[in-house]
Amino acid sequence: MKQITIPLPDDFHIHLRQGDALREYAKTASLQFGRVLAMPNTVPPLTTPEQLKKYREEILDATSATAPHFEVYLTFKLNKNYSENELTELRKQGAIAAKYYPFGVTTNSQDGIKNIEDLYPTISLLEKLNFVLCLHGEEPNAFCLDREKEFLKHLSKLAKEFPNLRIVLEHISSAEAAEAVLNLPATVAATITVHHLILTLDDIIGDSLMPHHFCKPLPKFPKDRDAVRAVAFSGNPKFFLGTDSAPHTKEKKECCCGAAGVYSAPVAIPILITEFENAGKLELLENFVAGFGADFYGLPRQTKKITYIKENQKIPETVDGSVPLYAGTEILYSPL
Amino acid sequence: MKQITIPLPDDFHIHLRQGDALREYAKTASLQFGRVLAMPNTVPPLTTPEQLKKYREEILDATSATAPHFEVYLTFKLNKNYSENELTELRKQGAIAAKYYPFGVTTNSQDGIKNIEDLYPTISLLEKLNFVLCLHGEEPNAFCLDREKEFLKHLSKLAKEFPNLRIVLEHISSAEAAEAVLNLPATVAATITVHHLILTLDDIIGDSLMPHHFCKPLPKFPKDRDAVRAVAFSGNPKFFLGTDSAPHTKEKKECCCGAAGVYSAPVAIPILITEFENAGKLELLENFVAGFGADFYGLPRQTKKITYIKENQKIPETVDGSVPLYAGTEILYSPL
Repeated sequence: MKQITIPLPDDFHIHLRQGDALREYAKTASLQFGRVLAMPNTVPPLTTPEQLKKYREEILDATSATAPHFEVYLTFKLNKNYSENELTELRKQGAIAAKYYPFGVTTNSQDGIKNIEDLYPTISLLEKLNFVLCLHGEEPNAFCLDREKEFLKHLSKLAKEFPNLRIVLEHISSAEAAEAVLNLPATVAATITVHHLILTLDDIIGDSLMPHHFCKPLPKFPKDRDAVRAVAFSGNPKFFLGTDSAPHTKEKKECCCGAAGVYSAPVAIPILITEFENAGKLELLENFVAGFGADFYGLPRQTKKITYIKENQKIPETVDGSVPLYAGTEILYSPL
Repeated sequence: MKQITIPLPDDFHIHLRQGDALREYAKTASLQFGRVLAMPNTVPPLTTPEQLKKYREEILDATSATAPHFEVYLTFKLNKNYSENELTELRKQGAIAAKYYPFGVTTNSQDGIKNIEDLYPTISLLEKLNFVLCLHGEEPNAFCLDREKEFLKHLSKLAKEFPNLRIVLEHISSAEAAEAVLNLPATVAATITVHHLILTLDDIIGDSLMPHHFCKPLPKFPKDRDAVRAVAFSGNPKFFLGTDSAPHTKEKKECCCGAAGVYSAPVAIPILITEFENAGKLELLENFVAGFGADFYGLPRQTKKITYIKENQKIPETVDGSVPLYAGTEILYSPL
């Protein structure tokens, strides 16, 4: 295929961080996506209407010159219970989803709640107020490769207890998670990252140690990657793109205790074009990157378009001080 | 226990590297062990009598002042077939074992032989000349967590084809490998490292990424660690210490593509005392570190003694420019 025109993609799971780096990460994201849903595990975490207002303004300020069409939707962190009034105020500042991180499972989750049932009062309000609940679905104390699988009992229970609540199991990485989401009601969806479509443990610890492929949840066995690919390439509206693009500086990755996260925003869409093309499913790409997610979140579908042409693109060794996915290699598509 | 006196330990699997670093690593090893079997995957690899002679001299020169009793036994690399005359000459220079690395499985193994059967002519001579065959038992093209398991078919075949050849499956890391060695004839033994007794994947990729715990073969599931512990603490003479202490500079570990290896030599014996003590098997420590290995290799048992006392020892952040196991933490025993 020589070129492809698709709606400007949505990314329903992205980390834009805070401080000076936020401007760079937001600008890079705004050149790849029309809309993003920004995660709240910043330092400090996003939990108040004032913080959301400021965060949104910073992002739009950083991107308005180069991508005036760029839209950002916000999440807030479920590290405590919220009142109905607080939730209403958060909504006014652009929050469309609440994000739950179990204690200690990933970057900046040391304030996570150990028992999700302690948040049921708030989750009930989320259901009432039509928020989406986004879950980092890993059970903290399980063996690293079992954490997602062990979390699924909580997902099933939430889906049952809150039948009208829309729930997204984020960045699924296992055959068991794909299966669970398939079998649960239509209120339960999943995001899929670019890296969980292409990596297994072999790409982190199989040869040399590759810190830039290290992330949570961990890429796992080939059977798990195959299961994630199967649902991504199935055309099932429960599965859509959330890159979990999670930049850390090179220094924070290449050290004695490297941070978890793959910085995929700069390359996500060109890689997806190739992956869908190689799977013979290019006709399903549009819904995956710019259809099912918007539908699930109740947003209008994107009307702006972007064209990618088949032209090799050399990925720099670093982008915004972070090492992106496929750094130093060539990918096959470039935006026109 | 307040103190323990044991024979000076033997390490039947150690990497001392080459060049300037060799002096430091050898000196450190000589303060922990009475005898070591040095691995041949240096740059260039140890394959000729001249190289072995020089290597041995360098090690003894580095250690004679501080540890005049220190003895080094050598291996050579099976990256080609050798004649009977060559093997005899290698023996004269201190080689007691040949080491087989499959292609590409670990540090400096890019000259490995893809098919071990291509080496059967030499392996037959090893049997005739009473050498030991040491195996890095990993199948190169298998998924990272399956490589050891997939190699076991070669081990079984070797044991059958060469019934008088003594074979050591090095650094076992899986329940399947422990089981296989248990079930094979007495000609087949295994070394066990300190780190495979204590680490699982959780310690490499469970929380932050820990490059200093990254090694080949990979520490695996808790069930695998438990199986390795079970045979180590069983008193079965097939299982003895080979630390696979494998120093790399801090820079080569904390980078974009970190080297595999745990530097355990500086702390191996104190940690083992604690592990055997906690398992209630302290009476089996002596045979594990200074008995079964010598017996298997046909060497006299060590007669010199060393005493460890219960006195906390703070492990430095680096030793010889490399980050040792348990760096920055306290261990419970120190040599008197």
